[in-house]
This record gives sequence, structure tokens and C-alpha cells, in this order.
Amino acid sequence: MSDPRALLEAMFRAAIGAADPMRCLSHYLPQPARDGRTLVIGAGKAAASMARAVEHAWADRLDRIEGLVITRYGHALPCRRIEVVEAAHPVPDGAGVAATLRILDLVADLDSRDLVVCLISGGGSALLTCPPVGLTLEDKQSLARALLRSGADIAEMNCVRKHVSRVKGGRLALACHPARLVTLVISDVPGDDLAVIASGPTIVDDTTVADAFAVLEKYRLREPGRVFEFLHSREAETPKPGDVRLAHAETHLVARPQDALEAAAALARDAGYTPLILGDSIEGEAREVARMHAGIAQQVIAHGQPVAAPCVLLSGGETTVTVRGDGRGGRNAEFLLALACALHGRARMHAMAADTDGIDGTEAFAGAVFVPTTWKRAQALGLNPSEFLARNDGFSFFQQLGDLVVTGPTHTNVNDFRAIVVEPA
Amino acid sequence: MSDPRALLEAMFRAAIGAADPMRCLSHYLPQPARDGRTLVIGAGKAAASMARAVEHAWADRLDRIEGLVITRYGHALPCRRIEVVEAAHPVPDGAGVAATLRILDLVADLDSRDLVVCLISGGGSALLTCPPVGLTLEDKQSLARALLRSGADIAEMNCVRKHVSRVKGGRLALACHPARLVTLVISDVPGDDLAVIASGPTIVDDTTVADAFAVLEKYRLREPGRVFEFLHSREAETPKPGDVRLAHAETHLVARPQDALEAAAALARDAGYTPLILGDSIEGEAREVARMHAGIAQQVIAHGQPVAAPCVLLSGGETTVTVRGDGRGGRNAEFLLALACALHGRARMHAMAADTDGIDGTEAFAGAVFVPTTWKRAQALGLNPSEFLARNDGFSFFQQLGDLVVTGPTHTNVNDFRAIVVEPA
Repeated sequence: MSDPRALLEAMFRAAIGAADPMRCLSHYLPQPARDGRTLVIGAGKAAASMARAVEHAWADRLDRIEGLVITRYGHALPCRRIEVVEAAHPVPDGAGVAATLRILDLVADLDSRDLVVCLISGGGSALLTCPPVGLTLEDKQSLARALLRSGADIAEMNCVRKHVSRVKGGRLALACHPARLVTLVISDVPGDDLAVIASGPTIVDDTTVADAFAVLEKYRLREPGRVFEFLHSREAETPKPGDVRLAHAETHLVARPQDALEAAAALARDAGYTPLILGDSIEGEAREVARMHAGIAQQVIAHGQPVAAPCVLLSGGETTVTVRGDGRGGRNAEFLLALACALHGRARMHAMAADTDGIDGTEAFAGAVFVPTTWKRAQALGLNPSEFLARNDGFSFFQQLGDLVVTGPTHTNVNDFRAIVVEPA
Repeated sequence: MSDPRALLEAMFRAAIGAADPMRCLSHYLPQPARDGRTLVIGAGKAAASMARAVEHAWADRLDRIEGLVITRYGHALPCRRIEVVEAAHPVPDGAGVAATLRILDLVADLDSRDLVVCLISGGGSALLTCPPVGLTLEDKQSLARALLRSGADIAEMNCVRKHVSRVKGGRLALACHPARLVTLVISDVPGDDLAVIASGPTIVDDTTVADAFAVLEKYRLREPGRVFEFLHSREAETPKPGDVRLAHAETHLVARPQDALEAAAALARDAGYTPLILGDSIEGEAREVARMHAGIAQQVIAHGQPVAAPCVLLSGGETTVTVRGDGRGGRNAEFLLALACALHGRARMHAMAADTDGIDGTEAFAGAVFVPTTWKRAQALGLNPSEFLARNDGFSFFQQLGDLVVTGPTHTNVNDFRAIVVEPA
């Protein structure tokens, strides 16, 4: 692999491959129930491909399984026994609520001989959604908007949301009781916290109704009234650690951002480049995260630190973009454009930033690549990188250079993938 | 060194020590002129201590030297033969202009037997300042303000400034011609670009008057008129690479940010901690740079990458703070407070951020330290780190915890010093 651009593309494929359910899921999949029913449920961007991986592993016993998973519009894949329903993400819609109710119906009245396999991936929080009896989706949405405006942090928002749901915060696991429950998870969150991924529908909750009230009080939220009525009811509390009803629930992380980075690192090593994984959960404003990556890459060139060239700097996680302009995003294109600006046409550098789900803000592309000639080609075309960055328009910049990375939906999601290849002098 | 906090403090002292002129300067200092005059000139935050180091090295020949250096108000140190003048920084004042004129007088009418030693350090651009004949300091200041407002980047601003000066962009070297000129430099800029440090008064300029006009045209700057008149005159052009009048000029970097980080790294290694230097020129918004440092530190804990604990992550460079609140700054306190917020009371982490010049925005402190108990102590005192961060008030936060690092002016400057010690599990 002597071409760094080809190496970047191969590393990205390896990263996605490491999170491909067909490859990573079967190892954690139990046998179907011997004497009872076997149900497959779940939600997330990877729900359809996870369902297919289950059907593939159980190909000779397909008649014994049934189920329903929810994925994002446009992300369904044909399955034979497991129904795949599409719904809205990131803002929930009625289709998601209806499908969630059908899942709750499916798992009602199970007994201890039955097995439920729950397939969870990023995006599941919006897709697997159901307001408690007496509340509407609009009540939940108006609460969500108020929380967003309030300045509450993500942990505070999750605490409230988990207490205003029929599935989040371990409630879906309660619904499956007393069946055996095996949850298989593809992580897209920093730190791989199971209680955070898709709002942990099968994971006990260590926050309480009292905590939720404290958040609402802190930000002086008093609406909608029906939410407060519900929170005062006995049904509002989520299952807690030690809850005996969840004693038969087990959970396995089948793919993590770190696994994707390790797969890319192995490929780099085979190609003669020393890999250095900076972090699997790097967060921050995309353009600032890019400047720091640039600073580290320049240290490689100036001082052979933190690792000597030839090398590949790798990172994962999820950056954010504070939108100032009217460009077409997304966060990986923004990162890469800011990186190009910071490196200012330096030789010896190739880089890629892309979303492992294949969608960098818009379906049109997964991310972008830059190579040592990017700066000069942009100048030749009259494209000013700083101006595109000011408009948050990384998409158009790299599109005009022909340097977009296009994969279509990958049907998995282990968050962002960033790689900088530094060649020797 | 079993106490990580003591290690942090020792590493900071080692970093400053590596840039102490008394230690790093004499190696590059030539012998005084044999048959001619020996003059010592210069400017910068380290000018006084550099002058003292010269006097120390030439202690037995003090009667043969004379000179004048300019430093920041409050940064003078007593010297025996070299006059130390104080002036304003970062906005120049008349004292700086007057002292610069005296330096130009000193080096006028030298001949080839004479030696000029020029001592340059960060801050020199504001301290060593003199408008061309026919222009006033106010003209220069109004130009500087217009450039700042225009959105011109630092390279564009420097290009214009170098062409509207009697000393910048190599002009001071021209003034010393035909004497031998040895410039000794302490770098405080990312990349250690000699033409950038103190605006390169003795370094040939590869930008031209035409470039300067292009910048002014690009940002539609038409004032002050006297600046444009001057730029049209023959005197406006700076000396260019290959200029024979600068053939006897040599320049040595005597201390760089990287040297300071290497000194800290050596100390860490001796104490049993693996050092990892991420970069000597990390730039970006302080709180975002902090989040990425936090992400890397968390990777150490979660996966033993990019280096296994016990380890020290080190970085230098210069962050910036976009001021939103009314706090007392500076950028290192802001970095450290944002780091504390991102790490959210995690165990196993000690960290320090401080300015090697001893002044983190205000003379009151160089930076701050946090330790695993910082989060709990802050809670006990009712201090909310996020609120202090929102006000840009890292100073008050760490002051109330008793965790400021106070050194007073260190009389050297190799920019920011950041270290995160991660202890083993």
C-alpha cells in the first residue's frame, strides 16, 4: 500500500468493517430458546443490518424466530422473519411510536422459557420512543424543546427523558420480564456508556424521579403540566440497579469506536505506517479539534513526536459544528477543511474525516479526503478554503475538488473516523 | 518524585529553566570584537535577563561592551554596562519609540571590525518599534487597528507592518551594516519562525511592498494616507534574501518551546512516568484545546493509548480565549478549568497549565494546577466550574481553591506549558 490516499480509504473500509454486524455480532448471539419463543427486537441506524446478521447466524432455525426492529428512513434492508420498520430520526415521529407500541405488544406476556434478543445502535433513542399512558408525543417533544433551550447538559436531559418514557432507562427490559433478555449493542457514544446508547432501554437507571424534578426545578421548567402529573405518579420511576426483574438481562457491546480505530491501526501497521490512536471519544468544536490535530501532525514533522513518520494519527468520537454560515456541513467536512486551513498546503500530509454511518450531515457523502495537492488545486479553481469554512460549507469545497468520500448508508455506526497520514521526509 | 503535584511543579520549573538565558545563551555567544566596538542591543520580555547573561559570560571584559535593550514595564533587571529601558507591551508607547531611536543611533556609523549582539525574545515587536521618517506612532497604531478590524490574518498583518517600520523585517540588520551581527533568539512562536519572532528585525523579509499593497487592497484599506505615501517611496522595501548587506548577519535560536517541553519530559522519565509530547505549537480556543486534551487523557485510562499510564501528556504553543464573560482570565486558567469540566472529577489525573513568562494574562499568576480532589473541593465551597468557565474566570476559581501557580515574571518566555499526569490504575 504505497499510496497514502489508498491507505486512507482502506483504513476507513476496515473501520466500518470492524463494526459490520455480519462480522461482529454472531460471537455474542445466544442459541434460540429451546422450549419457548424467540423474539428479536431493537432500534437504531444499524437495526436492519443487525437483524440480518441474526437471521444469517440462525439461518437453519429461521422458522423459530419472529420480531420487529426500527431503523431510520431509507435504512431498511430486506429480512426474512424479522420485520423492519422505518421511522424518523433525529426527531421522532408517529411511525416510531406506533412501531414501539408493536414491540411492547410483542414482548407482553412472555414467560421465563422465552428469549428476547434486543439489537441496539446509535439513533435508537429517537426511533424507539413511546410516551407513557396519558402523555402524547407532542408533550414529549415540547419537553425536549424546553430542555434544549434551558441550557441543561446531556446528562440532565437524559435523566428527565428516561423518566417520561415507556421504554427508555431500562423500561423495555421490564416489559420483557420474565423472559431471558440478551441485548447486543453497537456503541456510538464517547465512553461506550450502555446507559447512554439509545437511552439504555434495557439498562437499569441510576437516576431517579427526584433527580428529574431537580433538573426541572434548576432550569425553572413548569410545562407541560401533564408531564409533571405523570412524574408524580408511581409509574414514573425507572428500574434501579439490583432490580430482581432484570436479573435475567445481559448486555454485550459487539462493536465500539475503539474497535474500528484498532482495525484501521492494524492496516496501517501492515502498510509500514506506525499508528497512533489519540482517542476514541474526541469531542469539541470541529474546527478547533482540527487545529489541535494539525498541531500534533506538525509536531510529527518538526520533531518526530509523539510518533515518528511514516505514521498515521487516528481518532474517533463526535465533533460538533456551531453553524454560522449557510453551507451544507457536516462535521467531518468541516473538520477536514479546518485541518487543510491549519496545515496550509504542507507537504507530506494526507487526511480523511468521515462518519462511519456513511452520512456526514447529509446523505450525499460520508466525509472527505485531502492530499498534499489539495491546497494548490483549490487555488487553481479559485476556491478560498477560509471562505468555505466561514460558511460551514466543507461539502461544496470538497465536492468541487472531487474529494468527497461517498459510501451511502453503511448500516452501522461507530461515530466519526479521522486519520492523518504523515509520510517520511 | 512520588507526588504528581510536586512532579508538575518540578516540570514547570525545568521548562522555565531550559529557557533561562543564564543557562542557554552563552553557548551561542561569540567573543567580543577584537579590534572594534562591541554593542549589545535587543528587545523582548527576556531582554533584561538575556543582557545579564551576556554580562555574566563576558564578566572579565565588561569594559569593552556597551548597549541598550528594551523590555516590558516591570521586567527590568539591574545590569552593569547594558542599559535596560522599559516600555509598553502589547500596545507600543513613546518610551519604546524613543529607546528604539537610541538603538538606531548606537548602531549608526559602525564598521566591519565592530560586533553587534542583538537579543530578541517574544514581545519584541511592540517594544522595538519606530515609524519611518514622516510617519507618527499614531499613524502606525491607526493602521494596526484597521488591520485588526479588517479580518486580515496574522501573516497579512505582519507583511504590512514590516513595510511600515524602521526596524522590522530585517531593517535593524541593515542599520547595523557593515558590522558583524549576531542575533540570539528565544522563540515564543509556533514553528519558531525567525521572521515572525518580534517581527524579525534582523531577518531578511520574503514579502514585498507589492504584497503589502495587495493586502491593503484586499481589505479595502485606504487610511492613513501618509502610510500609502510612504509605501510608494523607495525606502519602503525591506531587505530580501541574498541581500549582500546582511551577509555578515547570523542568527541562533537559543531556546524554543520544544526545549522546555523536552526538559519537562526528561524529568518525567526520571520520575518513572512515560512522557508524550503532543506538540510544541498547539493553537486554538483554550476551552476546545482542553476538551481534546481531556479526550486523549481518557484514552490513556480507557485503552492505554496513545501511551500507557503512568505517563505525562505535554504540550506547548499558545491558545486563545474568546472573551464572553467578565472574568479575570487568562488563557491557561481557562484551559485548565475547561479540562477540569471535561474530566468531571475523574481520578488518576493531575494537570497544570501555565505561561512560562510567569504571566497568565495578569501579573498575579502564571497558571493553575488541578488534582483529583479539585472537583470535590469546589463542590464543598459551592463553586460551580461551568459557571466560572462561562464567565472566563479561571483565575477566581483556582484562587479560591488555593491552586494558582504564582512565579512572578520569569524573565524568559517560551509560551504556554501544559502537562497532564495520569497515574496507573
